[in-house]
Amino acid sequence: MSADSMLALNTYDPASAAVADPTIRGLIERRQRIFGAAVPLFYEDPVHITRAEGVWLYDHEGRAYLDAYNNVPSVGHCHPRVVDAVARQAAQLNTHTRYLSEVVYAYAERLLATFPEALSNLLFTSSGTESVDLALRMARYHTGGAGFIVTRFAYHGHSTAVAEITPAFGPGVPLGVHVRTVPAPPPGRSGEDVSQSFAAGIEQAIADLRRHGIRFAGAIFDSIFSSDGLYADPPGFLRAAAETVRRHGGVYIADEVQPGFGRTGAGMWGFSRHGITPDLVVMGKPMGNGMPIAAVVARPELMASFSERSGYFNTFGGNTVCCAAASAVLDVLRDERLIERSAQVGQYLKDGFERLQRADARIGDVRGAGLYLGVEIVDQAGAPDTREALRLVNGLRQRRILVSTCAAAGNVLKIRPPLPFSTEHCDLLLDAAGQLLAAG
Amino acid sequence: MSADSMLALNTYDPASAAVADPTIRGLIERRQRIFGAAVPLFYEDPVHITRAEGVWLYDHEGRAYLDAYNNVPSVGHCHPRVVDAVARQAAQLNTHTRYLSEVVYAYAERLLATFPEALSNLLFTSSGTESVDLALRMARYHTGGAGFIVTRFAYHGHSTAVAEITPAFGPGVPLGVHVRTVPAPPPGRSGEDVSQSFAAGIEQAIADLRRHGIRFAGAIFDSIFSSDGLYADPPGFLRAAAETVRRHGGVYIADEVQPGFGRTGAGMWGFSRHGITPDLVVMGKPMGNGMPIAAVVARPELMASFSERSGYFNTFGGNTVCCAAASAVLDVLRDERLIERSAQVGQYLKDGFERLQRADARIGDVRGAGLYLGVEIVDQAGAPDTREALRLVNGLRQRRILVSTCAAAGNVLKIRPPLPFSTEHCDLLLDAAGQLLAAG
Repeated sequence: MSADSMLALNTYDPASAAVADPTIRGLIERRQRIFGAAVPLFYEDPVHITRAEGVWLYDHEGRAYLDAYNNVPSVGHCHPRVVDAVARQAAQLNTHTRYLSEVVYAYAERLLATFPEALSNLLFTSSGTESVDLALRMARYHTGGAGFIVTRFAYHGHSTAVAEITPAFGPGVPLGVHVRTVPAPPPGRSGEDVSQSFAAGIEQAIADLRRHGIRFAGAIFDSIFSSDGLYADPPGFLRAAAETVRRHGGVYIADEVQPGFGRTGAGMWGFSRHGITPDLVVMGKPMGNGMPIAAVVARPELMASFSERSGYFNTFGGNTVCCAAASAVLDVLRDERLIERSAQVGQYLKDGFERLQRADARIGDVRGAGLYLGVEIVDQAGAPDTREALRLVNGLRQRRILVSTCAAAGNVLKIRPPLPFSTEHCDLLLDAAGQLLAAG
Repeated sequence: MSADSMLALNTYDPASAAVADPTIRGLIERRQRIFGAAVPLFYEDPVHITRAEGVWLYDHEGRAYLDAYNNVPSVGHCHPRVVDAVARQAAQLNTHTRYLSEVVYAYAERLLATFPEALSNLLFTSSGTESVDLALRMARYHTGGAGFIVTRFAYHGHSTAVAEITPAFGPGVPLGVHVRTVPAPPPGRSGEDVSQSFAAGIEQAIADLRRHGIRFAGAIFDSIFSSDGLYADPPGFLRAAAETVRRHGGVYIADEVQPGFGRTGAGMWGFSRHGITPDLVVMGKPMGNGMPIAAVVARPELMASFSERSGYFNTFGGNTVCCAAASAVLDVLRDERLIERSAQVGQYLKDGFERLQRADARIGDVRGAGLYLGVEIVDQAGAPDTREALRLVNGLRQRRILVSTCAAAGNVLKIRPPLPFSTEHCDLLLDAAGQLLAAG
């Protein structure tokens, strides 16, 4: 894969000499024989995880790793209520949507109740990729257009059609001829109006599509720009973007695969921080706390345009066991007040990194929302310092704290722990980061 | 959706007056409010399933339905060994392929051991659709071509790229300009050489692609032609097809989503009945007995071409819980000798339908392999009789035996029970079918 690919960030290099443990070396060899070279493996010295609980992962020697990265087990690894729901439902029934199911509809109704009223239909899928791909089909059928707009280093998934709108795969995977990219909205450091500059980029991209005879179908943006480097503020900056997309007849698709389900600490969905109601919303990762379930939520007029043209049956989408898991996730989010916690603990963590920033010019920026932070690492000239970011990520891994990187340059620490993360866990991470900065 | 779509076969029509139970009517209304009109629902009088065990499904009134249709819960609904594996692994660890995992590699190695030696690499995905889509990307990157060949009423999945090679969606979903269709290999009734006529169709399609300046990338065929109407015999007829594809530089992709994992009773994979070794194999549905797991198995040279161009990370693909479930499926297949059972019980069922056929001209043909049968229903002129097929399917459903239909005309009964199906279960199905034929 290309070195400019998101998948090449924080990746084990087979030429690395950092692996001392023969068990790890043996596992890496087997993995390589099975998967070949396509599937990225984290860290210079990869970790072998054998069990997990809450925010802790454990390896084959019983060593504990603090998980400050994984948002799929979002209510905590192996949460007993989710595990129970899975075990009970798996023993009772696991089937598909061509039979009627109270379990599936009750969950769908709970999920839809978390959305603005205009978003009243949904289809279940098995992955974020399937959801994005389906949303693209819906937008195409509804508008009759083919042209899509994405941000410069967006990652939306891996199917053929989704890879065509995913610049983060790097130059080996060409963008579609019908795709235009816009810069992600940068933090408005110089007092620039982020909202207007982002919308202006979209306006230009639509004009360029039209100039090439390509009818505009829509835009898809991760509501917190995870892959581009994490841009959350100011809340509301997406409003002008959504208005621009709609004014030109396009469909606004909110990619909530990463920010969704309370991650940002400001309600369930990243788009609501911006005061917008998208036309389509795609979600996945944390939906079933690790069980493969994802969805597209749609305005009914988009669903109607779609079903005039195409049927939709997804064998695993909306299966009973994954819906039971996803329903337990909603229970835990509510009962453990995890969204409030994400806001509070996220702020504590952000404050902590801002303290480090004041003492160290290598931290160029600290940004994010809730328990989703990007810590930008720069050199003396303020330029991205990928090497230093990787030193920190691998240094934290040696101290058994797991984070990774994002952004095109790979210089932004991506910190996105399970939501039960506490201020004590934040202190472990902040102390280790501070020590590594002091030692580097 | 179009009436010519596979998804419109054996589908509930909201105008139907057949639903008497107010519980069912209420569920149908909720379903419609959630999903809109795109997702098909089986039967004139849909069923509401609340629990399941082995080959039996139970509704909200505790009524038992004999499952003669579902191949996802292939080792039996809620098989205790699979349920146990899921419950144990869900309580211990559920994570992704960027960490090392003994559970995942041990399963992958077991799975690869069921393939010819040349097929030594795999990638995990979350669905058959994701697997087919990835196989198309691999074939394109390896050959530099874009042209694909499929059969006339093939169904391969629902992503944008896979819908473009899926004629069974009907006219609302256009085939790609780079796609050609060939007739599925018909049963060689007139002594015609099926193998040569099928290969000749492929040869013509490749020539037509070339004439349009489209470089040939490959062909994908369901090894038992599930959607086209089920064509299994004579074993070996795919050999000339595979040779033709390769002679022209194409990649032969075996779609084992339906025939795989022992369904045909002749080894694990449908392609092995034909004595071929594909370049890529896609699998899904029964792999985790209902847990969403799927895969692409590849020759290493295809994996190498792919990874030169693209990385691949699938969040849910190869997660620990689904791999544990899939490993238990292999245990059960082996310990309960379900492949041999599929051969034996499948033959018993086929013999039974052939007896019915000798007594009733409405059964035009009985075909299939193992516990996967197609029973073709025709009128007096020998033409497809869709209405009679639907009368039988809905009549069986009223007698609480679940089957469905396939083929472009929807006139072929699709019988594909969980593999623990016994000769006693066959007798229940055969007796009911005989009575319905006698009463019609």
